[in-house]
Amino acid sequence: MAEYIAPIQKLIDSFRRLPGVGSKTATRYAFAALAFTDEEAEGFADALIGIKRDVHRCPVCCGLSDSEEPCSICRDSLRDASVVCAVEGPKDVMVMERVRTYRGRYHVLGGTLSPIDGIGPNELNIKELLERVGEGVITEVIVATNPTPQGDSTASYLARVLEPLGVKVSRLAYGIPVGGDIEYADEVTLLRAMEGRKRLD
Amino acid sequence: MAEYIAPIQKLIDSFRRLPGVGSKTATRYAFAALAFTDEEAEGFADALIGIKRDVHRCPVCCGLSDSEEPCSICRDSLRDASVVCAVEGPKDVMVMERVRTYRGRYHVLGGTLSPIDGIGPNELNIKELLERVGEGVITEVIVATNPTPQGDSTASYLARVLEPLGVKVSRLAYGIPVGGDIEYADEVTLLRAMEGRKRLD
Repeated sequence: MAEYIAPIQKLIDSFRRLPGVGSKTATRYAFAALAFTDEEAEGFADALIGIKRDVHRCPVCCGLSDSEEPCSICRDSLRDASVVCAVEGPKDVMVMERVRTYRGRYHVLGGTLSPIDGIGPNELNIKELLERVGEGVITEVIVATNPTPQGDSTASYLARVLEPLGVKVSRLAYGIPVGGDIEYADEVTLLRAMEGRKRLD
Repeated sequence: MAEYIAPIQKLIDSFRRLPGVGSKTATRYAFAALAFTDEEAEGFADALIGIKRDVHRCPVCCGLSDSEEPCSICRDSLRDASVVCAVEGPKDVMVMERVRTYRGRYHVLGGTLSPIDGIGPNELNIKELLERVGEGVITEVIVATNPTPQGDSTASYLARVLEPLGVKVSRLAYGIPVGGDIEYADEVTLLRAMEGRKRLD
């Protein structure tokens, strides 16, 4: 296919770096960007630069912070410092924050254990979690990794290393999603839901 | 839902300006951008600024040019100046360029006639097309608007204003797409394919 004029082709190539964006979608985005006002285009460009310049790793939870200081959740003294929810990525912190009643802290693992990909405990932020636990304030770690084999083995590993330190380690419950339909639940989920059944009082 | 830290939220909001991008996709893009190298992020930002700064309207065909001068197709003296293909948007120029044997020129109409949306001949680049025809070099205008009611009425309108000037006006043929399956062709397309049937010699 013929190439577009250079400035457009350059933008198409940039959009193609985004996940799941092929040449048709990238072209659609580039032509939409052509209709941006100058302010919109500059704001967008500035946001791209800003994400590299203004986003830092929180020195406490390993999540994202908008300064070199601990993030707003780690700084929030009203939050319960004795409970830590361990998640895979920084995005998951915001996912868990939707559960508005959770008022504990977080720890971002930076992935899951996956020996086949060469990801062992040293590749994740587990040392940082052990250090936090070592400070003696944390009493429970809720492991909120994804319900995948890697998420499961990461949870088991954390239980193995954290429980000897006197910390309770729990995992999010498996089961049928609220509002879901049993008919469409897969067998493994149903089995887990059976195993985790609760007696009605 | 809780907001992300400001630099990320700003980028999410920018990505949401793109067509068909909702908050989930925008978030996915923003987190992917977080993993860009500095050069990638700067190149992307520069491409966004560049599209506003370096893309101009070709003074001849009303398409896109990378300078204030006529675009590369209009400047190409090897291309047949007597045939002009009228398309809806600048993107369609590249679509038509895939037909590698077409060696004529283009004219970008900038849309289609749509009285209901207040788009009449003055809102399109029809005056510019009439001026080009008035120079006396053009002998045929191939109307390649989309096969929609608006595309059809634009083609009829062009035929009505151009033919009195002694220019042949043609329209892309309707019919079954090559490699398509008759079973899945809609009735209107089949009817047009019947009407446009050709005798086998």
